[in-house]
Amino acid sequence: MDSTTISFSTGRQRGVVDLTAAAAEYVAGRGDGLLSVFVPHATAGVALFELGAGSDVDVMHAIDELLPRNDDRYRHRHGSPGHGADHVLPAFVAPSITIPVIGGRLALGTWQSIVLVDPNEDNPQRKVRFSFLE
Amino acid sequence: MDSTTISFSTGRQRGVVDLTAAAAEYVAGRGDGLLSVFVPHATAGVALFELGAGSDVDVMHAIDELLPRNDDRYRHRHGSPGHGADHVLPAFVAPSITIPVIGGRLALGTWQSIVLVDPNEDNPQRKVRFSFLE
Amino acid sequence: MDSTTISFSTGRQRGVVDLTAAAAEYVAGRGDGLLSVFVPHATAGVALFELGAGSDVDVMHAIDELLPRNDDRYRHRHGSPGHGADHVLPAFVAPSITIPVIGGRLALGTWQSIVLVDPNEDNPQRKVRFSFLE
Repeated sequence: MDSTTISFSTGRQRGVVDLTAAAAEYVAGRGDGLLSVFVPHATAGVALFELGAGSDVDVMHAIDELLPRNDDRYRHRHGSPGHGADHVLPAFVAPSITIPVIGGRLALGTWQSIVLVDPNEDNPQRKVRFSFLE
Repeated sequence: MDSTTISFSTGRQRGVVDLTAAAAEYVAGRGDGLLSVFVPHATAGVALFELGAGSDVDVMHAIDELLPRNDDRYRHRHGSPGHGADHVLPAFVAPSITIPVIGGRLALGTWQSIVLVDPNEDNPQRKVRFSFLE
Repeated sequence: MDSTTISFSTGRQRGVVDLTAAAAEYVAGRGDGLLSVFVPHATAGVALFELGAGSDVDVMHAIDELLPRNDDRYRHRHGSPGHGADHVLPAFVAPSITIPVIGGRLALGTWQSIVLVDPNEDNPQRKVRFSFLE
């Protein structure tokens, strides 16, 4: 297995980061196998959905409805407001996803992007591990 | 890695499609390894739960409570009513799952089925990619 | 691929079980590869989140808000109260997750634990399958 870790600047704003281009570059020139995209953080997830048509905003909104950011709801309470919610996120939006690679290309559908979901304002840098097994 | 894509008729009704038999057939005769079930669509997911006892209806109902289908809630708005919700679904019900295979058999529990979750009325045909790595 | 099944006593209380130590022991001494953690049950899931700071309680609370335990909501109705909800859980908290292993060590982030999420009171014993592919 080949594996590498890449840092992404996510800034202090809540939201998503498109990992698709970095993942495509990582698998380019390889054969057939599975790409594991793994986020070694406890307050972020990784998902596959369409970017560029508003669904990123819709996903963050749905997360905030599922996990309201008033911290008196949460046992885990420290850091910025909403941090308790951020720690519940990965139970629903897991920090690990596997994507088939065929002939060195991600076998994504036309409208699928690989998206780092990062509701946390406190971490302006995030690491993502790409691993390839053939 | 071996990989293939299979088409499933999901019809114009919202709901689930049982992929278990097709997956079992795909891995039959193989050894030990991991099966990746991957849905290359931006408005569907794949999950493991019990079929035949009503949970399919319960899952769709829970999805509709989490992601109400009144489109004025969503930034992404086109196509049939509820399409905005459909585009958020894969953040919560991912289009990728990995299942161990032992001696050419899916290592599923007694009550687990592999289920394509397809809330989208607009796509009567769906593709699913099976990949096997040993 | 190497694969094994381990039994965990989850008791009759609803809640979580930490699988991290057992997974770390399973991969110790191996090289680089992917660990598949798979729960062959239809009323449990596996997730990666922080333990020891209250998020386990917060996750169970969020699950109960998403899937209320009054059974008249569910088509699937038998066993203890809440069993209908338990059968919907794996659609949102999948029973399968993949974790990279580097040099025989889980490539988890500092605050990530591997957590069996088991809302079901009826099963005091649960099996978990660990599989390692390199």
